[in-house]
Amino acid sequence: MKKIKGVIFDLDDTLYNSSEFVNIARREAVKSMIDAGLNINFDKAMEILNRIIKDKGSNYGKHFDDLVKAILGRYEPKIIATGIITYHNVKVALLRPYPYTIKTLLELKNFGLKLGVLTDGLAIKQWEKLIRLGIHPFFDDVITSEEFGLGKPHLEFFKYGLDRLNLNPEETIYVGDRVDKDIQPAKELGMITVRILKGKYKNMKDDVSDYQIKNIYELIDIIKKLGGNK
Amino acid sequence: MKKIKGVIFDLDDTLYNSSEFVNIARREAVKSMIDAGLNINFDKAMEILNRIIKDKGSNYGKHFDDLVKAILGRYEPKIIATGIITYHNVKVALLRPYPYTIKTLLELKNFGLKLGVLTDGLAIKQWEKLIRLGIHPFFDDVITSEEFGLGKPHLEFFKYGLDRLNLNPEETIYVGDRVDKDIQPAKELGMITVRILKGKYKNMKDDVSDYQIKNIYELIDIIKKLGGNK
Repeated sequence: MKKIKGVIFDLDDTLYNSSEFVNIARREAVKSMIDAGLNINFDKAMEILNRIIKDKGSNYGKHFDDLVKAILGRYEPKIIATGIITYHNVKVALLRPYPYTIKTLLELKNFGLKLGVLTDGLAIKQWEKLIRLGIHPFFDDVITSEEFGLGKPHLEFFKYGLDRLNLNPEETIYVGDRVDKDIQPAKELGMITVRILKGKYKNMKDDVSDYQIKNIYELIDIIKKLGGNK
Repeated sequence: MKKIKGVIFDLDDTLYNSSEFVNIARREAVKSMIDAGLNINFDKAMEILNRIIKDKGSNYGKHFDDLVKAILGRYEPKIIATGIITYHNVKVALLRPYPYTIKTLLELKNFGLKLGVLTDGLAIKQWEKLIRLGIHPFFDDVITSEEFGLGKPHLEFFKYGLDRLNLNPEETIYVGDRVDKDIQPAKELGMITVRILKGKYKNMKDDVSDYQIKNIYELIDIIKKLGGNK
């Protein structure tokens, strides 16, 4: 086995609790919009919002505009602005890395490993999360699907990530939470795969990943065993 | 003279210090982008940014994208995200009404007057400011140029604002900071005009306005004199 030279991480639900944060932020935003005059009960509003998110995708910028339009039949900037402010306030308050994330990243850097993030999403939005999480200085590169034009689970996207970091698959560990979008393609390319059991996909069936961990700090032992520490 | 029934306010630089806030927010954002790798000196960066704002208008959503592109010749989401976060943090920290604004609005409501805001700009952005300023509950209506399709100094926009509030011009006081965009058109329609000497236009030549005030609370005396208090 080759010596480990780098680690590539997924971002959402791998380095921080994205599922929980987004859930809370959306719910609080909807509550604040109801308080601002969106005349509907909470569960019904969440049902409509979830349908809009499903239809338009999570990177669509006007979920709250559409929600208000669907419920009131008109443009109501006061209510939309209320939702945006609440969502943003919750984001600022809740965006924190999982426990042991910074300690782990620090030790990985001390091992002399290259570190990268490979994530679906809009580049500025994903960078905003990394900066607010306070972990961006640890990464040698951050690769987003927006920049590449194709996202997970496309193998080309993972290859592009390896190229950007100048890493070969067999000397690289990939860490992600999803079997289908993270582990499967990374494994297929010959990377060593570590699945982190976090977020809404933590109970997904998995007979693919090389390792499963509950806490990111377990990575350190895996790398020591594989010979990635200098 | 008819009894005063309502007061319409401009927003930026009339109810809060927009010039100062935007200046500080942009400067701090540029400093943070330089710290994040935007390799240029500060004055030069501000010069380029100011040119972009002049060319594209202040409601263009990608000033920092263009700035980074102009300086580095490429898309650099990390630096753009850094600028956006800093701009936003400064906004949250500095967005406060001018002294005596809330006290004044409260007394005006106690007089039984209708209160409105008539402002150029994007509806959601202007509402976001009013909500963050904490003064939105005082206003019976907020009218933005985006919703109407035409902005200041178009007389139609002012007429539309009067209609929305169901006010006649001669029973309405208009309060704004700019002679050209606020006072002139309001006066032309027959409104009673009060110019607030605040922000970057405070030294503008003015032989139009009916009253000039340095502090918004002076409105109370003007209205008492004109007979707008119940």
